[in-house]
Amino acid sequence: MRVGVVGAGYWGPNLARNFAISPDWELAVICDLDAERAQSVADRVGGVPISTSLDEVLADPTIDAIAVATPARTHHPVVMAALAAGKHVTVEKPLADEGGRGAEMVDTARANGLVLMADHTYCYTPAVLKIRELIAAGELGDILFVDSVRINLGLIQPDVDVFWDLAPHDLSIIDFILPGGLDAATVAAHGADPLHTGKSCVGYLTLPLAGGAIAHIHVNWLSPTKIRQMVIGGTKRTLVWDDLNPQQRLSVYDRGVDLAEQSKATTSDARAANISYRLGDTWSPALPEKEALSNMTAEFASAIREKRQARTDGASGLRVLSILEAARGSLQNAGAPYPVDITHEMVLS
Amino acid sequence: MRVGVVGAGYWGPNLARNFAISPDWELAVICDLDAERAQSVADRVGGVPISTSLDEVLADPTIDAIAVATPARTHHPVVMAALAAGKHVTVEKPLADEGGRGAEMVDTARANGLVLMADHTYCYTPAVLKIRELIAAGELGDILFVDSVRINLGLIQPDVDVFWDLAPHDLSIIDFILPGGLDAATVAAHGADPLHTGKSCVGYLTLPLAGGAIAHIHVNWLSPTKIRQMVIGGTKRTLVWDDLNPQQRLSVYDRGVDLAEQSKATTSDARAANISYRLGDTWSPALPEKEALSNMTAEFASAIREKRQARTDGASGLRVLSILEAARGSLQNAGAPYPVDITHEMVLS
Amino acid sequence: MRVGVVGAGYWGPNLARNFAISPDWELAVICDLDAERAQSVADRVGGVPISTSLDEVLADPTIDAIAVATPARTHHPVVMAALAAGKHVTVEKPLADEGGRGAEMVDTARANGLVLMADHTYCYTPAVLKIRELIAAGELGDILFVDSVRINLGLIQPDVDVFWDLAPHDLSIIDFILPGGLDAATVAAHGADPLHTGKSCVGYLTLPLAGGAIAHIHVNWLSPTKIRQMVIGGTKRTLVWDDLNPQQRLSVYDRGVDLAEQSKATTSDARAANISYRLGDTWSPALPEKEALSNMTAEFASAIREKRQARTDGASGLRVLSILEAARGSLQNAGAPYPVDITHEMVLS
Amino acid sequence: MRVGVVGAGYWGPNLARNFAISPDWELAVICDLDAERAQSVADRVGGVPISTSLDEVLADPTIDAIAVATPARTHHPVVMAALAAGKHVTVEKPLADEGGRGAEMVDTARANGLVLMADHTYCYTPAVLKIRELIAAGELGDILFVDSVRINLGLIQPDVDVFWDLAPHDLSIIDFILPGGLDAATVAAHGADPLHTGKSCVGYLTLPLAGGAIAHIHVNWLSPTKIRQMVIGGTKRTLVWDDLNPQQRLSVYDRGVDLAEQSKATTSDARAANISYRLGDTWSPALPEKEALSNMTAEFASAIREKRQARTDGASGLRVLSILEAARGSLQNAGAPYPVDITHEMVLS
Repeated sequence: MRVGVVGAGYWGPNLARNFAISPDWELAVICDLDAERAQSVADRVGGVPISTSLDEVLADPTIDAIAVATPARTHHPVVMAALAAGKHVTVEKPLADEGGRGAEMVDTARANGLVLMADHTYCYTPAVLKIRELIAAGELGDILFVDSVRINLGLIQPDVDVFWDLAPHDLSIIDFILPGGLDAATVAAHGADPLHTGKSCVGYLTLPLAGGAIAHIHVNWLSPTKIRQMVIGGTKRTLVWDDLNPQQRLSVYDRGVDLAEQSKATTSDARAANISYRLGDTWSPALPEKEALSNMTAEFASAIREKRQARTDGASGLRVLSILEAARGSLQNAGAPYPVDITHEMVLS
Repeated sequence: MRVGVVGAGYWGPNLARNFAISPDWELAVICDLDAERAQSVADRVGGVPISTSLDEVLADPTIDAIAVATPARTHHPVVMAALAAGKHVTVEKPLADEGGRGAEMVDTARANGLVLMADHTYCYTPAVLKIRELIAAGELGDILFVDSVRINLGLIQPDVDVFWDLAPHDLSIIDFILPGGLDAATVAAHGADPLHTGKSCVGYLTLPLAGGAIAHIHVNWLSPTKIRQMVIGGTKRTLVWDDLNPQQRLSVYDRGVDLAEQSKATTSDARAANISYRLGDTWSPALPEKEALSNMTAEFASAIREKRQARTDGASGLRVLSILEAARGSLQNAGAPYPVDITHEMVLS
Repeated sequence: MRVGVVGAGYWGPNLARNFAISPDWELAVICDLDAERAQSVADRVGGVPISTSLDEVLADPTIDAIAVATPARTHHPVVMAALAAGKHVTVEKPLADEGGRGAEMVDTARANGLVLMADHTYCYTPAVLKIRELIAAGELGDILFVDSVRINLGLIQPDVDVFWDLAPHDLSIIDFILPGGLDAATVAAHGADPLHTGKSCVGYLTLPLAGGAIAHIHVNWLSPTKIRQMVIGGTKRTLVWDDLNPQQRLSVYDRGVDLAEQSKATTSDARAANISYRLGDTWSPALPEKEALSNMTAEFASAIREKRQARTDGASGLRVLSILEAARGSLQNAGAPYPVDITHEMVLS
Repeated sequence: MRVGVVGAGYWGPNLARNFAISPDWELAVICDLDAERAQSVADRVGGVPISTSLDEVLADPTIDAIAVATPARTHHPVVMAALAAGKHVTVEKPLADEGGRGAEMVDTARANGLVLMADHTYCYTPAVLKIRELIAAGELGDILFVDSVRINLGLIQPDVDVFWDLAPHDLSIIDFILPGGLDAATVAAHGADPLHTGKSCVGYLTLPLAGGAIAHIHVNWLSPTKIRQMVIGGTKRTLVWDDLNPQQRLSVYDRGVDLAEQSKATTSDARAANISYRLGDTWSPALPEKEALSNMTAEFASAIREKRQARTDGASGLRVLSILEAARGSLQNAGAPYPVDITHEMVLS
């Protein structure tokens, strides 16, 4: 299958490099309005053709799919045009800059029988794939809480706040690893802009989950110390993912809380009295050393061939987008919980 | 000066040991309703008298002060009786189980010219004393954010939730180190009780501070990995306190965000464009090895002698209490921001 | 059984405290030439009798055993007197200040049917007990190398160098965990005294083991950063013990080198070509929280009751002593390998 | 200036990439006996000419210098030919496979007025450059000890042991940072080959330095845990370099040992009594993010232009080589200290 990369800015070169070396794909073209930028990317992967016209790319019948790495506000027109031209699409996060547009994209892909994939790259890292596998196999039991921290000294972006810049990573990962996806009905967002830049530079998201569980995300552009850590607590075991510790990224703690059987029918005080702690071993699974984007390009190809949804499909991109929109609503209401608009998703069913 | 320790449970023995070896104090008596428990504590400090009657202790004219380590719900009656008997008091956190009662205690101490001290022990650790000193000296510049994490596998308490159990530490520390104290007008609290114990086991507190800054606290009883870390971001430098790294508890990062001078009068977009990052050295101050409680007993004695408020006075205990009460209000309103009742404090002025 | 503690200096109080709370022992007396020092220790364990006369203690027929925590040069006369009086003995490291004296002590205990135990306290920590258990169960396979680092800013001792101060810990641990004990035939010792204090402050010990394996110990009084780490490489797995990481003291790496079966009969070049690496999981066993000295007092009691050698018996103390003496010989020969005098041990067989 | 890269194996591509982007150099040719391998490297840097003939490259009068990345045993003939052709040379470590050959290379370069540089890449990392600068400025005082650990699961090499594979890094770094270079008169080497591969897989080098100081190196192919740490103790401060901690590679501890002034004339016992410890702050200097090889290519160009020795010149390569040879001698003598052959160096003076 032949693929064109649209957008030769920050992320495009990574896509180009991985499609170029993929056994599933032939890299057909690099497309960017800026010919020089496109050429520079093409040179680095050994001389692929370039184009400055999206229409031209989409008109090429030998091209099966496109990978979109343009700014978020252009995702909707680019993807809609590609879907209209019968191309499968993988698109950078966030899916779109607005929920309604995202829903339209998902709907159209479905109607046209095309794969629309959200390029949630983190989901294809060996660590996240292993987490998903462990949870699916019941190794952690029921999920009690997810706490994610992604803080670093980061460039203050001209057009997005810290939530739209960083939280899509955490949200897409949580959506990917939870068996039922990220189905929070409300979001509370607390942001701070202490440098008066006009947008949040420090942010916290709280998402109540089904059954009393909770997910929480801390994103921060102002921290001189870099932390990328997720703690996932379950009834059986708890997993800690420390992405900055290459010698031990994942630790599974066989420690936790045991509820005595009889306590289940009694009052909460009695339940509390029957809780005890287990202190067991810790285990750190070996992870294959494989680049996430190469897993992503393989999944994109498989989904097309097998005529199925990709593991990070448009709907997952839409869930992430809906939560970001609800977070914006919560921010405008001083952090009060704000409903996630699930009408987008209802469209889909 | 002579002091009696009231309450021989979990914390009392630590108080007894530190008063016993303090050059400022003579430990006069261990008081507990349970004579055996009192005797056991007395034995461990070399044979101090015991008493099972608070009235008896308070009637002793040779006793200048008492240290209260009884359950929270008894703080109000015990402290009010002590103040009525003309004794100075240091009391375990939280100050009281309810804001109005706490305010009455503070008021009475003030009216009677007695020292009422909140035993916020963490504030007397070498690390926190150094943080306070650095901030007061302007080393961090203006404070932009405070992010505190205190998570661990903890015993689920029969009578308090994770907020009332752990957050008083973080709140009292933040109150102690910020130049103006912790003056948040509202609090948002998000809790989760995924084990259905009847109380929150995972909790998040968000406190907007003056000037667009923010404080945030994560407390958690269900985490198998223990973290006690506070990041304090300032306009000049950022400090990270990792209490579990004895070899480098404090790190001061000379990194951060610089705003170009001219940007101060312009629009926020222009401001964002003028922000740049500084990457400077990291510095870890040496800390004296001194037990916090010995600093606390010394401060208690000094405040009495110098007829001044203690550094962690009743008013600071009341601020912590008011925030805990507001957090309870927020929890009951699904996490919506809840006003901190400052009428308690108005009483004081 | 009743035990007397002889020596109320640095280590005596720890012994006293642990014997006092042991279910196996009744603490009979604290003995020290300095009555005040003895009394101070006695007070801290609730009023045990004291004595300033060793003879008096040894003459007491109700005392079954003594625990010796006096300076090393007094171990021989104290222990010999105790053994002559029919008392079982546990003695601080090193066993004696000279190999011949140590051998005499071991011989006499054996002849008199008494337990002579070396108080190698580290061997009774949960971490070391677990390491011994894992190696004995074959979990690591054959041992290929042991690398031990014990460095810290340490007080320069008036009478011993860094080898005699710190290396007994490493040597006694290695002796304890290796299935056949520490049977090195030679030792090479390299020391440095860059401050011209008259004794080594930085030291390295190299001990060739059977089958081509090696043990190496780095001890250092001049390091501002504290490291206590032992790496034990085996044919099947490798274990890392980081004693300063309470959250994960032991890590067992299922990584290592595999030799293809056919390579065993071929040349070494062919062998090298057939070596491959396995990258498996890491596993960190949970350890009980138990004080080492309480395990030691229990073992002392068991050995006496069961009329058997203690797990750290006099012979192990003698092996450690022989290696320290050989190290002294190597030092005096500019680091050339020096034979370990095993005539001491031959006495025993 | 124009440079040719000779050898397109493991290291050649890194050299090619850095010369290609250097403002000081024009990359003229990639030379390898294997044309395909040469072409592959040439492609990755944008189409440089290739050659399979060293003679052809050396005959080209427009080429000023060559960078040699061929196997160690070929260094001597390649470099001698290049020097004969009037080319400046930078050569991979080790300088040669034998000391006499290395000395001849250094001699010839000197006689012909050409730069012969040892490509000790680690010396050009920001961390090592900073260490050298701090020591030169007297920040650490006199050096007391250097302890270097470089352990990892490594491929067992067909032709070299762990000393020749890894220790050149440590030796060249120590030579670079010590004010007088690495002038050890003897070396003791202890190796182990517990897998019977025919060469040492675990190794320790001990090098006594002037004034009672000591350097020690631990290299190991069998460790599943990766450590790259160097501790450099000085009379004023101690520096720890942890190359695997990108957030804090260098830590300078203002802790150490103070000798009272009067003690200097007295006996060593009195000296020991006058030693005290200072516990001061820790400081971690910010390091520029610059690739080491780009610093190396710049130094190579500067040395040629300024007609001076490079900072890592042939003589430094020769010192490293002499120590490796002495280590081989020590290994063959069961670890007895072995003299470093300084006749090679005498040739130079």
